[in-house]
Amino acid sequence: MDSVLTLWVYRIVESVGEGVTDLKPGDHVLPIFTGECKDCAHCKSEESNLCNLLRINTDRGVMIHDGKSRFTIKGKPIYHFLGTSTFSEYTVVHVGCVAKINPLAPLDKVCILSCGISTGLGATLNVAKPTKGSTVAVFGLGAVGLAAAEGARIAGASRIIGVDLHSKRFEKAKNFGVTDFVNPKDHEKSVQEVIVEMTGGGVDRSLECTGNVNAMISAFECVHDGWGVAVIVGVPNKDDVFKTHPINLLNERTLKGTFFGNYKPRSDIPAVVEKYMNKELEVEKFITHSVPFSEINKAFEYMLNGEGLRCIIRMEP
Amino acid sequence: MDSVLTLWVYRIVESVGEGVTDLKPGDHVLPIFTGECKDCAHCKSEESNLCNLLRINTDRGVMIHDGKSRFTIKGKPIYHFLGTSTFSEYTVVHVGCVAKINPLAPLDKVCILSCGISTGLGATLNVAKPTKGSTVAVFGLGAVGLAAAEGARIAGASRIIGVDLHSKRFEKAKNFGVTDFVNPKDHEKSVQEVIVEMTGGGVDRSLECTGNVNAMISAFECVHDGWGVAVIVGVPNKDDVFKTHPINLLNERTLKGTFFGNYKPRSDIPAVVEKYMNKELEVEKFITHSVPFSEINKAFEYMLNGEGLRCIIRMEP
Repeated sequence: MDSVLTLWVYRIVESVGEGVTDLKPGDHVLPIFTGECKDCAHCKSEESNLCNLLRINTDRGVMIHDGKSRFTIKGKPIYHFLGTSTFSEYTVVHVGCVAKINPLAPLDKVCILSCGISTGLGATLNVAKPTKGSTVAVFGLGAVGLAAAEGARIAGASRIIGVDLHSKRFEKAKNFGVTDFVNPKDHEKSVQEVIVEMTGGGVDRSLECTGNVNAMISAFECVHDGWGVAVIVGVPNKDDVFKTHPINLLNERTLKGTFFGNYKPRSDIPAVVEKYMNKELEVEKFITHSVPFSEINKAFEYMLNGEGLRCIIRMEP
Repeated sequence: MDSVLTLWVYRIVESVGEGVTDLKPGDHVLPIFTGECKDCAHCKSEESNLCNLLRINTDRGVMIHDGKSRFTIKGKPIYHFLGTSTFSEYTVVHVGCVAKINPLAPLDKVCILSCGISTGLGATLNVAKPTKGSTVAVFGLGAVGLAAAEGARIAGASRIIGVDLHSKRFEKAKNFGVTDFVNPKDHEKSVQEVIVEMTGGGVDRSLECTGNVNAMISAFECVHDGWGVAVIVGVPNKDDVFKTHPINLLNERTLKGTFFGNYKPRSDIPAVVEKYMNKELEVEKFITHSVPFSEINKAFEYMLNGEGLRCIIRMEP
């Protein structure tokens, strides 16, 4: 999930189309890669954020109501990207893909709440829902996993076990509330066995933030029987198969998945920005780099070589 | 699950052991195959009923605190069965495996709440938790599945889809609130595809009450994305593997399992009896036969040939 959506730019409304009443020029907004029409069964459900109309679509490339692009270069169309097309100074976005936020929020910081950070945070706060004092395991300590850990820290977890194949990530993870570390390479036993032993029966909650199907299985099998909940966050490959013995379910474990942390973009993201404004959520620690648009390829390098968490692209003249 | 626990007898306390203060001679009780010590982490959890001390154990055969049996015949020990040993006129049971119930409740009816009926009912009411107007699929229309359907009826489901390989079960199932029927043998498509089409995207809740691992997979894959919850109730075989593509989870489906409907035997079963007393729950329709103890083998026949749902064993002199 990290791999395509690391880079974000921030936005102020320049003008609105016919019929748009929710927004006006000058509003501060976050464009979001998945939308909320507020009218379909999913938008009307309290539980789902998988809007029928504006759900993530990497292939569409056009505005949904007329099937046309709003960008051209020398008379030829340029297609939209992920409903937001944010690698540009100006963009055109469906009103359903825009969250209007507190104008006092610093856009060059809260812009990272448009994707992975909210994904990890919401996976914990909205889906796994650890209670105060819980034990939580987080698989994968990239930005999404660290945001999931940050959610566990905010929820008051007593112990947050970070799992990653790269031990160099462990030191940084402490800033996100991670208290214990497991590198599967250091153990002959499966990581689920290691965690079950460490915790006397399993963790209360686990979050899988790598997209690796074996990590998904481990994340499920390391939760405590009777009450454990595992939440799948990472995006799997097309041919992956999740496998487990059904008795692991019968013993009262729960397995769920989430998309964008179950946040409804327009309804919920403004409140996530407020969490930052009232200092409940620390956003700065996710931002490791900042580059002008002219150096956008550097941002991709930071992402690809795992040097950073989030890089801000500045639209400087 | 149906296969070992169909037959139940009812009980009145004759005497209590040292230190037992919760019960006194004359109390009406239901002996239950899994216990509640009220002291372990599971008993103290609001979610679990998998008591560490008295959790179901088919091999133990003795009283837990001294490792001895309380039954003998001609000086040789007879071992206890499933913590209850109810195929006898008198039995000795751990206080943690006994639910004290309303003395006005007819014991020859509410005795069936000691196992499968509460299992199915609780799977729906405590775990799947359909809201009023929901759609619910029930896989397997034996007594447990029909009890799950009864739970959905009580919860106000608008549509209850029964799935079974034996179409002759469909007529009877109507009495338990089942509105639609699917026999997988009648379709070339998978049963999950049939249900997704019937419901415009999937059911809100599903309950798997057969123990067949393919039915478990179908039960999971037939729930609606965004909010669907599948609950596994049936007991699988030792070598079964539950398989699904993880994207089915990512699309915000939930998969859970339950044991004894998540009811804590001592704390919760008395209230299930009250549901019957106040006519919310219909128990009589599950009781298709009644035999004296001398004809207990007939009861096994009814069970094995699928003729009945529940058979009461009467301890007549």
